[in-house]
Amino acid sequence: MSARGQREFFTVKTVSEALTGFRPARRTSAETVSLDDALGRVPAEPLHAPHALPGFARATVDGFAVRAADTYGASEGLPSYLDLAGEARMGRPPETEVLPGTAVAIATGAPLPPGADAVLKIEHTQAATPELLEVLKPVTPGEGMVRPDEDAAPGAELARAGRPLRAHDLGMLAAAGIVEIPVYARPHVAIVSTGDELVPAEAPATGAACDEPPSAAAGTTGAATGAPAALPIGQVRDSSAPALAALVREAGGEPHFAGIVPDDRDALAATLAATLNLKGSDPSRVVEGSLPESDVVLVSAGSSVGARDETAAAIASLGEPGIWCHGLAFRPGKPTLLADVGGVPVIGLPGNPRSALVVFRLIGTPIVRMVGGCTDPPPEPSIRARLSRDLPSAAGRLDVVQVRLSGNEAEPLFGSSSLLSILTAADGYVVVPEAATGLAAGSEVEVMLYR
Amino acid sequence: MSARGQREFFTVKTVSEALTGFRPARRTSAETVSLDDALGRVPAEPLHAPHALPGFARATVDGFAVRAADTYGASEGLPSYLDLAGEARMGRPPETEVLPGTAVAIATGAPLPPGADAVLKIEHTQAATPELLEVLKPVTPGEGMVRPDEDAAPGAELARAGRPLRAHDLGMLAAAGIVEIPVYARPHVAIVSTGDELVPAEAPATGAACDEPPSAAAGTTGAATGAPAALPIGQVRDSSAPALAALVREAGGEPHFAGIVPDDRDALAATLAATLNLKGSDPSRVVEGSLPESDVVLVSAGSSVGARDETAAAIASLGEPGIWCHGLAFRPGKPTLLADVGGVPVIGLPGNPRSALVVFRLIGTPIVRMVGGCTDPPPEPSIRARLSRDLPSAAGRLDVVQVRLSGNEAEPLFGSSSLLSILTAADGYVVVPEAATGLAAGSEVEVMLYR
Repeated sequence: MSARGQREFFTVKTVSEALTGFRPARRTSAETVSLDDALGRVPAEPLHAPHALPGFARATVDGFAVRAADTYGASEGLPSYLDLAGEARMGRPPETEVLPGTAVAIATGAPLPPGADAVLKIEHTQAATPELLEVLKPVTPGEGMVRPDEDAAPGAELARAGRPLRAHDLGMLAAAGIVEIPVYARPHVAIVSTGDELVPAEAPATGAACDEPPSAAAGTTGAATGAPAALPIGQVRDSSAPALAALVREAGGEPHFAGIVPDDRDALAATLAATLNLKGSDPSRVVEGSLPESDVVLVSAGSSVGARDETAAAIASLGEPGIWCHGLAFRPGKPTLLADVGGVPVIGLPGNPRSALVVFRLIGTPIVRMVGGCTDPPPEPSIRARLSRDLPSAAGRLDVVQVRLSGNEAEPLFGSSSLLSILTAADGYVVVPEAATGLAAGSEVEVMLYR
Repeated sequence: MSARGQREFFTVKTVSEALTGFRPARRTSAETVSLDDALGRVPAEPLHAPHALPGFARATVDGFAVRAADTYGASEGLPSYLDLAGEARMGRPPETEVLPGTAVAIATGAPLPPGADAVLKIEHTQAATPELLEVLKPVTPGEGMVRPDEDAAPGAELARAGRPLRAHDLGMLAAAGIVEIPVYARPHVAIVSTGDELVPAEAPATGAACDEPPSAAAGTTGAATGAPAALPIGQVRDSSAPALAALVREAGGEPHFAGIVPDDRDALAATLAATLNLKGSDPSRVVEGSLPESDVVLVSAGSSVGARDETAAAIASLGEPGIWCHGLAFRPGKPTLLADVGGVPVIGLPGNPRSALVVFRLIGTPIVRMVGGCTDPPPEPSIRARLSRDLPSAAGRLDVVQVRLSGNEAEPLFGSSSLLSILTAADGYVVVPEAATGLAAGSEVEVMLYR
């Protein structure tokens, strides 16, 4: 099929259609991690309390373990009196029982002795003699203590499957003694860069740079003086791959660089087949030899129409069910391509670095999370602000506009989508929904904040 | 000085006083990391463009490089005609000059040939003959292209000192060839747990558990069947340390467990002195022998008044300038202690796990960031919601209340501050400011969301 022929089957979807409708089946398998490595990891199954927590009744105040009924009616004017019968020791099973008419000294956190059903605060008592306690205020059963199963009953769900573990979830699991945690493996995400103009970020300023290893680059004059030199005219450093790798990490994935592939359909098809561990790929055409099998594949496509068509053709050649959409109704992400190759999501990103990053945040992050078992993603920071000027937009197309905040005002930043400086100057972005035909200056908008 | 004597000098501060006034001098030193490891790291100096970016004029559309003046007046009804003079190749210096009356074919991203000052979109042209181009619409100079320094002029600031690097900052640094980045080292944060009742999270259910290494624990029946058994009455697993370690990581620090110290002033003082690399500490009393010198020290103190006094005494014994405050006017964080020992912040946290985590989020996170050079912390997620019920609070005291969200409603969760389940059930927390005497049901509040 020729490039022209491809374009006749151009299927454009909206972003919301993509988010709900594009559901490749791939999920990572489960692995076990230690508590210390579990922050942000996604439990592969719900985690339940193996026994009651804290496991015994505990004092939550400093004072005296008592039978509450013994304190009823006590007041400053008419105190009750209890016999002091020892002390509950921290960290040990209680040695003394609280019999009717007696009290046992207890510190916050210590186990309640048998017989006691409340802890009287020290402030509400007075020592009459070393053996006798004056009670100035009554307590009700359960006061000043927690029950043995008050933090968790046996079998209670301590952490949900599918929600990344938060710091306090780890605390709860530690309390229960759960120190080995079954989680979804981090999705392996291959990042394939394409473009005859691209050289690696570490490339020195020589024409042959792209074949040199980074260590060779360190030997050039530019790197030795700490200031990388300008490249020959026409070449640009691959900025998308390192930025995408960072976004992959934020989404819980593990990025793998599959190298820079020239604008050549067969070379791209061979590299993609290798990342997907497909049979019949030509190893001599693969840029990076040793990649793990990918759970998600990102292709940062060339920016020109011809390069985009080559990418589409290479992806179309991989296998079933194949290309799901061949364009997204959103700016700056129109040339996005989504494909499902044997259950593995393949995302063809626009060639402009800014567009590629915007598309990845909107579409790629949810896909990487889905493949990694995350059904309950963590909240993202946002703020409400007022637009400093009109934002034009076409109905039926979603627009992502970078904004800089000053106080409560969001100033839209415009410029070519090839410019990364628009992103680095931005504090966040505003999404102009598909139905809107633009937003007027002064409109309240939600700014998704970069962090 | 006796414990009683200590308490007479009890200095209680507000949270805002602590955040602005407690400024120990410690900062970590600079180190160099590769671009691939730089996400979230804090630049130790501003990073500048070593040369112009992209470095050459580039096409941003597919079309024809022209002299804009040659297109003036062209229209569909009355086209202009230009001689086709070759093609600008992607990734290579241009070979053809654009002379008056000529045009050179160019793809998005390719370098503009000399002589050209605009790129005419292919949609606004038509091929008259293979050598002759019909121009249907005029372009102005600069259209369809970016200037050589449009993404960054030489010397422009690409990333600020003190602000954690975001994904697109890494893209910008890659574009400039900056692949080795000077950043503040991650602060080493020692976590000292104290309490006679504590055993490690991985402890098996035996009385001697706390002295056994984790590998021994794996051999017990409970661990072998995957279900940890209940501990002897009185003992609790150390849940604060793993949760605090996770929060330290979120703040950009590197946690180090300094072990569980019994409620004993000398043992605690010896361990603290070791984490601070102070002379004269008694190595035989130190629980963990090999700790790096700490940049921040956290002490998760016992919960009882006696244990708290011992912690205060141990910290007071360490050195100058010493204890800065000995209580914070906030619930559930009152027993918080802040000290400056030779420039190193020492934070005495409440013994209740929930209180410890709340205090660390409010006070500890900003301190770890400060020590790690972060002057511009990333935004945290929050949402506005309405309280489902009244929240009582005392004036002059800040209250942190855990809430569960359902739709637009925030339901406060109450219970003993020893319960972690209140935190794991919460979606976030509400801060009732010091000036407020409570908030009525239906009040709009900002919920800081957990992630």
